Amino acid sequence: MADTATPLTMDTIVSLCRRRGFVFPSSEIYGGIGSTYDYGHYGVLTKNNIRSLWFRSMVQERDDVVALDSAIILNPRVWEASGHVAGFTDPLVDCKTCKLRFRADQLEHASCGKRPSKRPGDTSDCDLTEPRQFNLMFETQVGALRDASSTAYLRPETAQGIFINFKNVAQLARRKPPFGIAQVGKAFRNEITPGNFLFRQREFELMEMEFFVPPDDAEEWHRYWIDARRSWYLELGLREENLRARAHGAGELSHYSSATSDLEYQYPIGWQELEGIANRGDFDLTQHTRESGTKLEWVEQDGTRYTPHVIEPAVSIDRIMLAFLCDAYDEEVVGDRERVVLRLHPLVAPVKAAILPLIAKDEGMATRARALYEELRRYHVVEHDEGGQIGRRYRRQDEIGTPWAFTVDEQTLEDETVTVRDRDSLAQERLPIAGVRAWLDDALARDWRSPQSR
Amino acid sequence: MADTATPLTMDTIVSLCRRRGFVFPSSEIYGGIGSTYDYGHYGVLTKNNIRSLWFRSMVQERDDVVALDSAIILNPRVWEASGHVAGFTDPLVDCKTCKLRFRADQLEHASCGKRPSKRPGDTSDCDLTEPRQFNLMFETQVGALRDASSTAYLRPETAQGIFINFKNVAQLARRKPPFGIAQVGKAFRNEITPGNFLFRQREFELMEMEFFVPPDDAEEWHRYWIDARRSWYLELGLREENLRARAHGAGELSHYSSATSDLEYQYPIGWQELEGIANRGDFDLTQHTRESGTKLEWVEQDGTRYTPHVIEPAVSIDRIMLAFLCDAYDEEVVGDRERVVLRLHPLVAPVKAAILPLIAKDEGMATRARALYEELRRYHVVEHDEGGQIGRRYRRQDEIGTPWAFTVDEQTLEDETVTVRDRDSLAQERLPIAGVRAWLDDALARDWRSPQSR
Repeated sequence: MADTATPLTMDTIVSLCRRRGFVFPSSEIYGGIGSTYDYGHYGVLTKNNIRSLWFRSMVQERDDVVALDSAIILNPRVWEASGHVAGFTDPLVDCKTCKLRFRADQLEHASCGKRPSKRPGDTSDCDLTEPRQFNLMFETQVGALRDASSTAYLRPETAQGIFINFKNVAQLARRKPPFGIAQVGKAFRNEITPGNFLFRQREFELMEMEFFVPPDDAEEWHRYWIDARRSWYLELGLREENLRARAHGAGELSHYSSATSDLEYQYPIGWQELEGIANRGDFDLTQHTRESGTKLEWVEQDGTRYTPHVIEPAVSIDRIMLAFLCDAYDEEVVGDRERVVLRLHPLVAPVKAAILPLIAKDEGMATRARALYEELRRYHVVEHDEGGQIGRRYRRQDEIGTPWAFTVDEQTLEDETVTVRDRDSLAQERLPIAGVRAWLDDALARDWRSPQSR
Repeated sequence: MADTATPLTMDTIVSLCRRRGFVFPSSEIYGGIGSTYDYGHYGVLTKNNIRSLWFRSMVQERDDVVALDSAIILNPRVWEASGHVAGFTDPLVDCKTCKLRFRADQLEHASCGKRPSKRPGDTSDCDLTEPRQFNLMFETQVGALRDASSTAYLRPETAQGIFINFKNVAQLARRKPPFGIAQVGKAFRNEITPGNFLFRQREFELMEMEFFVPPDDAEEWHRYWIDARRSWYLELGLREENLRARAHGAGELSHYSSATSDLEYQYPIGWQELEGIANRGDFDLTQHTRESGTKLEWVEQDGTRYTPHVIEPAVSIDRIMLAFLCDAYDEEVVGDRERVVLRLHPLVAPVKAAILPLIAKDEGMATRARALYEELRRYHVVEHDEGGQIGRRYRRQDEIGTPWAFTVDEQTLEDETVTVRDRDSLAQERLPIAGVRAWLDDALARDWRSPQSR
């Protein structure tokens, strides 16, 4: 919020998301289902953009990374080998008085349910049990038989689907380390205390890439990926002052990790993990080799063998979208009117352009606007809006971050030009209606990789 | 298989998919997990194309359909209201002798496990129990408490996530019937007898669109969507003789449906459902209105109220991909060599072009090929391949369906032209290396909607 003194709150973003149909609580007519959200039209479009921009930079534009889409329900032995059955747990305490459940390691955020007016962290009225380990994997049963042999899990990360396919994919893709396998898909964690809007949900869409390297090169590649991922956010317009890299201390490391750096974003709730970039070492391949009997190692042409180390950039689309929305949110006064504007990067913005007839009832304007819309939508996500005053239509597009609006007006009927309005500068210029498609193509194909001034 | 007399078998497709890394059995190092598959690099790319071509035609190019992405784990009351808890079942019989389980309504495909040499349908050695109803929804528990109150389900269809958001989305999107809500995402069914490769899996990626219409217009819109969806397949190159529409008989209808037509494809296993296009009537909105207390109806400006009827085209990406692969598969003899070629539509093909230096060790050729590849990959999925003889590289691309190959050869070093080889005709022509990007852009932006001759 460059132009306002008031700090952005999560409520402001939640409210914009609901008002404009980016995101709303799931199953609302049935009272919801704890901290789960459904994505509306603009939310889906934004997520599609984030997913394809990630895929483009991680797979399409590299020749050392290939794609994979493994199943959500894998053979349950995968999760025994990976350590998740034994160790993917949070410490849980129950209060015998107020019956709430808390994470024992996050009691500073808890408060007693009997005395809800108390400050967070005050559970002094609670009668807490000893902490017990609660496994965060969702369980289910596969097949018609319901017993221990049919128990399976919803994946809590997509990474294991990659590790078990390491040998397979390396052969098929004719790749040798350093090379990576990238995957996008839903993951599920039965969080004790989900919350903070899109930040911590029980289901979320992960984008993970496991990069297999010779052990001696692991540290260097770890640094490489921290830099590469940081650059990706900056190129897509995230403000540098809201992004930082932070190395985990020894006590914070996951069971599989020998080093992790978080890219943290300054959300309205403070600095929090946006993306984790872990050096998983040879933990996973070694475990699966031991448990499956299949050697997940690399054999050089001279016969030398080694188990590759793995660098993993892992992030959820949900957290990226939340960061982009917070970062882009702005309120400003223009003339005598206030406007909310999402200054999203054009490649992230859900709608690329709006096509507006100045006076919808004017048949000449309506016909030309409609024809332009029908031409453009074959190539880009664009909107046609003929409802209400032009100022109101502009503000509606500002709120969803549409970078450009093409308006068909009186002059169009004379000289076949339209105005193009820039979301950020509010500058308007005229261009021939026949040139709009090429203008928009060019604007979107421009090399956005250079830092933007906003 | 236009040029061969031998009918295509599923084994041929399974084998191609594994050999080229489109699809392979999941969790293979742990012995697999019944009828579940992981998608490799080319499989992911092909699915991405199918998903975005569907989205483009169903959402982007229409102004009467908006997108949604609802959660996989919804409030469990959704599935009570929808009838799935009570009725989404298959009749199951157990054999007390061989311990196998069969679908009681599909015993003609079963065979006794004790006498595996017996013909399908021969369960005469089995001692079958009476049929019992087996619910196909996967169950899980949400939250730290494990009892009936925490039971939830993995969605067996994405449609219900749309129905419960009908009112919400109609308001946000400022749409009135006829309008639709489209959604793509994983769905899960605990099938008793999954099988036939990608055709029937326990998890699969559904693409569904619920189109809400005034009740009197339902039949007309039902016909509209059958035609529209049929055209989509034909425009993307599916052979007309392998696609047919078939109306369900009264005995086949699902509990929610008043009429369904399947678009059937002639798979190697025979004519089978590719896409279902159902007239769900007002069943779902009425059920959710009753159970949730929220009126899911449409109110006209004059105060007239009605519950819209719903037309639903529903298909899984997996079945589309299987149909496209089967349809595109061809073997032919060229000169003295046999080749396998996937004659995929260019927009469906996982890789759009291969860039090949004729002699990889020639520095001039290598440099130019590499530079061309690095230019093109910013815009399209392309491959650079310098390994092995040129004929072998062409055949590798033919097998994954790459429509065009650009080859850098001796002449390139003299006049800066490359050859472009057409996958289907094998014709080669030369064009300036500086014009390749525009040539490929044009080839892919061409209006593919007209029927192709192949």
